[in-house]
Amino acid sequence: MPNTAYRQLEARYRRIALLGEAASILHWDTAAIMPGGGAPARAEQLAEMRAVVHGLSTAPEIGDLAADAEADTDGLDDWQRANLGEIKHQWTKATALPEDLVVAHSRACSACETVWRTARPEGDFGAVQGLLQTVLDLTREIGQAKAETLGLSLYDALLDDYEPGGRTAEIDRVFGELEAFLPEFLGEALDIQASKPAPVTPEGPFPIATQKALGEKFMAALGFDFNHGRLDVSLHPFCGGTPDDVRITTRYDEADFTSSLMGVLHETGHALYERGLPERWRRQPVGSALGMSVHESQSLLVEMQVCRSRPFIDWAGPIMTEAFSGTGPAWETENLHRLYTQVKPDFIRVDADEVTYPAHVILRYRLEKALLSGDMSLDDLPGAWNDGLKALLGIVPASDREGCLQDVHWYDGAWGYFPTYTLGAMTAAQLFASAKEADVDIEVGITKGNFHPLMAWLGENVHGKGRLMSASELLTQATGRPLDTDVFKNHLKNRYLA
Amino acid sequence: MPNTAYRQLEARYRRIALLGEAASILHWDTAAIMPGGGAPARAEQLAEMRAVVHGLSTAPEIGDLAADAEADTDGLDDWQRANLGEIKHQWTKATALPEDLVVAHSRACSACETVWRTARPEGDFGAVQGLLQTVLDLTREIGQAKAETLGLSLYDALLDDYEPGGRTAEIDRVFGELEAFLPEFLGEALDIQASKPAPVTPEGPFPIATQKALGEKFMAALGFDFNHGRLDVSLHPFCGGTPDDVRITTRYDEADFTSSLMGVLHETGHALYERGLPERWRRQPVGSALGMSVHESQSLLVEMQVCRSRPFIDWAGPIMTEAFSGTGPAWETENLHRLYTQVKPDFIRVDADEVTYPAHVILRYRLEKALLSGDMSLDDLPGAWNDGLKALLGIVPASDREGCLQDVHWYDGAWGYFPTYTLGAMTAAQLFASAKEADVDIEVGITKGNFHPLMAWLGENVHGKGRLMSASELLTQATGRPLDTDVFKNHLKNRYLA
Repeated sequence: MPNTAYRQLEARYRRIALLGEAASILHWDTAAIMPGGGAPARAEQLAEMRAVVHGLSTAPEIGDLAADAEADTDGLDDWQRANLGEIKHQWTKATALPEDLVVAHSRACSACETVWRTARPEGDFGAVQGLLQTVLDLTREIGQAKAETLGLSLYDALLDDYEPGGRTAEIDRVFGELEAFLPEFLGEALDIQASKPAPVTPEGPFPIATQKALGEKFMAALGFDFNHGRLDVSLHPFCGGTPDDVRITTRYDEADFTSSLMGVLHETGHALYERGLPERWRRQPVGSALGMSVHESQSLLVEMQVCRSRPFIDWAGPIMTEAFSGTGPAWETENLHRLYTQVKPDFIRVDADEVTYPAHVILRYRLEKALLSGDMSLDDLPGAWNDGLKALLGIVPASDREGCLQDVHWYDGAWGYFPTYTLGAMTAAQLFASAKEADVDIEVGITKGNFHPLMAWLGENVHGKGRLMSASELLTQATGRPLDTDVFKNHLKNRYLA
Repeated sequence: MPNTAYRQLEARYRRIALLGEAASILHWDTAAIMPGGGAPARAEQLAEMRAVVHGLSTAPEIGDLAADAEADTDGLDDWQRANLGEIKHQWTKATALPEDLVVAHSRACSACETVWRTARPEGDFGAVQGLLQTVLDLTREIGQAKAETLGLSLYDALLDDYEPGGRTAEIDRVFGELEAFLPEFLGEALDIQASKPAPVTPEGPFPIATQKALGEKFMAALGFDFNHGRLDVSLHPFCGGTPDDVRITTRYDEADFTSSLMGVLHETGHALYERGLPERWRRQPVGSALGMSVHESQSLLVEMQVCRSRPFIDWAGPIMTEAFSGTGPAWETENLHRLYTQVKPDFIRVDADEVTYPAHVILRYRLEKALLSGDMSLDDLPGAWNDGLKALLGIVPASDREGCLQDVHWYDGAWGYFPTYTLGAMTAAQLFASAKEADVDIEVGITKGNFHPLMAWLGENVHGKGRLMSASELLTQATGRPLDTDVFKNHLKNRYLA
């Protein structure tokens, strides 16, 4: 007997998802294409779309239909049951928020992000502080409303949007283990690095058109389908769009191709995950990406685990050299690998190596917890940022451009997001280790530029699973155990202490 | 005392307009940016957005609020009263259609337009005929529903979406006057043209980047604000986006810059109208463009009246010559002007000169009336097209690529649209004649590349009026009389028989 209540829920969430897809393309357009003068109108458009989606997502009928559907789940398969669970959870969260708060938040984020775009290059935190305060206040209000409904702390309630089921207590444990390991390890890694020849940086200029063509070549090799996606430019690189039309962005520097190229490969990892989500469950909650730590695990698996490995550089180095007609010692594979695995405490998170990256995340995690709880005010943010970076990595940025203005996240309303980067890095190490164990062709393939075996394993174990299970269950099913910091530590030891 | 019912209507239409703006950007994205594989998902997104807009536009509360607002219009000014009238008219039309018909139509148009994109270059009408049949059937169904509600004929009901208040009877009269005039006039114009030296075509290749830069230079001179708009590429040139972010497109041919350049100037005329709509009435029905004949009058005023005139070529010719480093007789101003006012019966409407253009429109107008009424079937369209063009211009296209596949309109669901092109050409002639009479600086300015006087007159008499009055009232207010074919005829005589 068909569960008609369940079917009605599917129809409602299909509409919600389609409007979400439309908003996602508009968001990409805002960042990659839109002329500056269109910003105020775009903010209104996105706010209004979010209000409409909010109205659809909070319809009381959904609660009634979910209750009816739950009363008769015999005819539902595992995917449908998981979908129903997701629907219930999302509806509960959505109904915790009044519509005017959602609209005000969306509008505040658009306004703040727009001003941030010019404040960042000018290093002018004061220019955006007022707007950021509004974003923070509204974010706190949203977090409190969700926290009350879900019975969580304010931070965990915000975190749940990015990492379903994620908890501060678990993050504190994992980050604690990393903090206990990393400072000493960083010292050792830097010592070993100092004992080897310093990597030589290839000299540009590297024409942007050549950089783009090279990025697209590697994207295609990894499995990116340009019939279902694009590569463009934006100030802050991201992966947007929809599973059927994945839009990734990068930013180019004519003097240095390495940073943009790895950025492109990073976003390609995100893109392959989106594109590989189960097509049968398109536009249903169960068919969407699991959470940001798994999402980030896919970008970091491609960038950090694969593309900075020696087998990959053995294959890709000569292609880079040919693209830029490179000659001399800078273009030798050994040197390129040293360059791509160079450890160097620096200010910019997105350019950070994988050894110092967790420090950037831990800093932001602490600061956003303090700002949200009210233990710290925005007046103190630039100073606290600089003090924190000094304590963690021993360096102080010269301006807020390289400090608290560098990431779009807070300015765009993404609070409770940062921890997922480092959870993702650890998940990536654990998945890649198990993948290589499961199929020896994976590592052999990488040396030849053949990524089919790797992508087949990821498709089966990660991409195609959607939200059928939790991140922890997925990791356990794929690797035999939940998140284990030792695997990440071993990866770092193998790469940097060898 | 405030008219609260009216205010509530404004809030509702603001939401409808914002979702429309979002859909407009998605439509531009589909044509200019989207990878092919994204098409099916995009069709679903747009269909769903239209369904949501349809739901908002047909809310029974609007009828009630409009009745309340109409009962107490003392506190409303002229703009508000006109807005209320537009709201009432739009709601009446929208409620004539069931939602599933709107969704089915939107989806059918997206599917058909997508297949048309490949069928057109291949000249394969059969590949798209089935999808076009679906579009036609659903269009007819929509027309019938509207016709019944509005008390109009099926064709007039469809026409009303593009030309509010437009009627077949009036079009038949105007087109009749043109048909009585044009064949003989065309013969005379061709004879005079044959008595002069044949225009020499500049030889390419003309790099696309240079063409684009040149187009942007002229756009800027005309008043296009690149902080509120873009120029991109699409198969079928159009003006899309929103008044605060106007997106125009063109297509380039490396062997010939003249066609794309005039296309860009044409779309710039549309763009300046959109951008000049009254900001105070943004996102209200009264603040939107009046109708397609007035819209087309603005593109044709810029392209045909201004940019193909001798005063414009005197200024622009040397700039073109410099851009392409042109030398020789082809680049002399006299020759460029002859080239830009060349009369030549040809197959492609968008490339047609202004003397033969009405024939293209009259052909399409007759064919779409016959297809909608059922007097003709799609099986007969390619043949009827070729027969019709032969009768009107004495030429027969070699393939459907240059015949019934050339325009996106029918494939994208725009039936009842074509007549507005020729109504627009006549309106343009009439407006420009009055503008030059009203301010002598307008023509002087054009010779110097100064378009401020012209744009000031258009802003005051056309752009800034929105939908405050009907097209006929606007024309009468601006020029002293309603549409008069004699003004268009005089323009043609002055330009081609001199």
